[in-house]
Amino acid sequence: MQSHPPYLVGLIGAGVGPSLTPALHMREARAQGLTYVYRTLDLGRLGIGPSEVGGLLRSARTLGYDALNITHPCKQLVLADLDRVDATASRLGAVNTVVFGPEGAVGHNTDTTGFAAALRTGLPGAELRQVVQLGAGGAGAAVADALLTAGAERLVVVDVDGTRAERLTQGLAHRFPGATVEAAHPDKLSALLPEADGLVNCTPVGMAAHPGLPLDATLLHADLWVADIVYRPLDTALLQAARAAGCRTLHGGHMAVHQAVDAFRLITGIEPEADRMLAHLRELAAAGD
Amino acid sequence: MQSHPPYLVGLIGAGVGPSLTPALHMREARAQGLTYVYRTLDLGRLGIGPSEVGGLLRSARTLGYDALNITHPCKQLVLADLDRVDATASRLGAVNTVVFGPEGAVGHNTDTTGFAAALRTGLPGAELRQVVQLGAGGAGAAVADALLTAGAERLVVVDVDGTRAERLTQGLAHRFPGATVEAAHPDKLSALLPEADGLVNCTPVGMAAHPGLPLDATLLHADLWVADIVYRPLDTALLQAARAAGCRTLHGGHMAVHQAVDAFRLITGIEPEADRMLAHLRELAAAGD
Repeated sequence: MQSHPPYLVGLIGAGVGPSLTPALHMREARAQGLTYVYRTLDLGRLGIGPSEVGGLLRSARTLGYDALNITHPCKQLVLADLDRVDATASRLGAVNTVVFGPEGAVGHNTDTTGFAAALRTGLPGAELRQVVQLGAGGAGAAVADALLTAGAERLVVVDVDGTRAERLTQGLAHRFPGATVEAAHPDKLSALLPEADGLVNCTPVGMAAHPGLPLDATLLHADLWVADIVYRPLDTALLQAARAAGCRTLHGGHMAVHQAVDAFRLITGIEPEADRMLAHLRELAAAGD
Repeated sequence: MQSHPPYLVGLIGAGVGPSLTPALHMREARAQGLTYVYRTLDLGRLGIGPSEVGGLLRSARTLGYDALNITHPCKQLVLADLDRVDATASRLGAVNTVVFGPEGAVGHNTDTTGFAAALRTGLPGAELRQVVQLGAGGAGAAVADALLTAGAERLVVVDVDGTRAERLTQGLAHRFPGATVEAAHPDKLSALLPEADGLVNCTPVGMAAHPGLPLDATLLHADLWVADIVYRPLDTALLQAARAAGCRTLHGGHMAVHQAVDAFRLITGIEPEADRMLAHLRELAAAGD
């Protein structure tokens, strides 16, 4: 018979209805022989404001949920409602996974561990001396943390919102004193790219709703690896241009899968098969296009 | 891949922690290839009063529950919080199953349909001219309704609480004008049993916590069928005495399974295998003894 308990997990956020994460978790659980229900708890559909995330969290716990994934716009807001936050999430000031256990509601951040694992497994040996990152939002904060943790020597975060880029890079510079972390305006890209080893897109440009390229494709060169965190579609215009320029590439599905892999492990204590989840994601993404 | 959605179901009541219903539902769902999580929502453990069942019901719906089973002490209380109640539950004034759907929260009562199915399948051809029922509580109300719906011509409900027995039988007499429905004190059993075709125990006597016999075993005779709704243990002292007297018997597991069968069908639209669930119940009950 079943040796593991049945699991109940939810995703809290705005506009989470179309998320592929529930299907990713449930299909992997099924392959593992687990009973696992993953529900979307969409703030808009429920008529619940982002600031009420604490009430929703408590209700979920009362109603027998084992864990929650948390996404925009609640990753920071939820911090106030947790009993404990792990070191990574605490450093980032953002939580994307809450596990209910004997210690209470414990927050984690698998966006950053997920990107780190994606980079490690999807672009093994990627050179990290100089990396340019586009976008200083929430996903950008997680990716930058992962890049610096992985050993990036110089990280330049490019954002049209200079204040946001400055705020992020100042925090990073403080936490990673051994690295050089700088903010830059997009008009500096033509100077930055020729000397860069890697480029990561953390802007929404390339998503179905925001088509196009997040930078001038002529700046791409064969010595550059290019990672995108957009995963719908998996093959963005940026990755197409990067392949045409001879770059090694990493699509956003790797990060999407590894954040789910890490959350699944935290929730169940069971190691999911990342390759199988990546294959599932490819199918799901293709079906949704 | 999976053609059915994942299901999330709960059981609201006091002291529901040890209930076998969650395991019964989940194991049958698993055998059917369904993803199905069934949680107990114990009022005592949650520190929620019975009168707050409406709030718990609404929370469950918000949190993505598909359906709830409702048990003591909320079967009547929950009526006020439903959008619609089916004919059977409405007649009984008690709900044990709530399904959330396009029509809102809809109440059903599978205790009565469950006992009817148990009697039909477990004691086929049982004579229903004269039936004596012990116990006029909530379970007794459901069983009496099922007996009269099944065609009992004369039903005598015996309870030490005469007022409770009168209240139940007056309501039944009104709803089933073609039948004779009477209340009686236990001291009338020695006169009632010799002419009875069937006897149903709806008191808690025989449960592990209330051992013993609900009537004098010398009143049992070979022309009587005997049904017990106690199912922990499955083989009660009453059923043992009845077999010794040569009676056909029906253990309480049949009703427990058929109320679950009917709830499962209402929740999923899928027909469960009652015999497989009965085998599961036997295993679960044996493991729990």
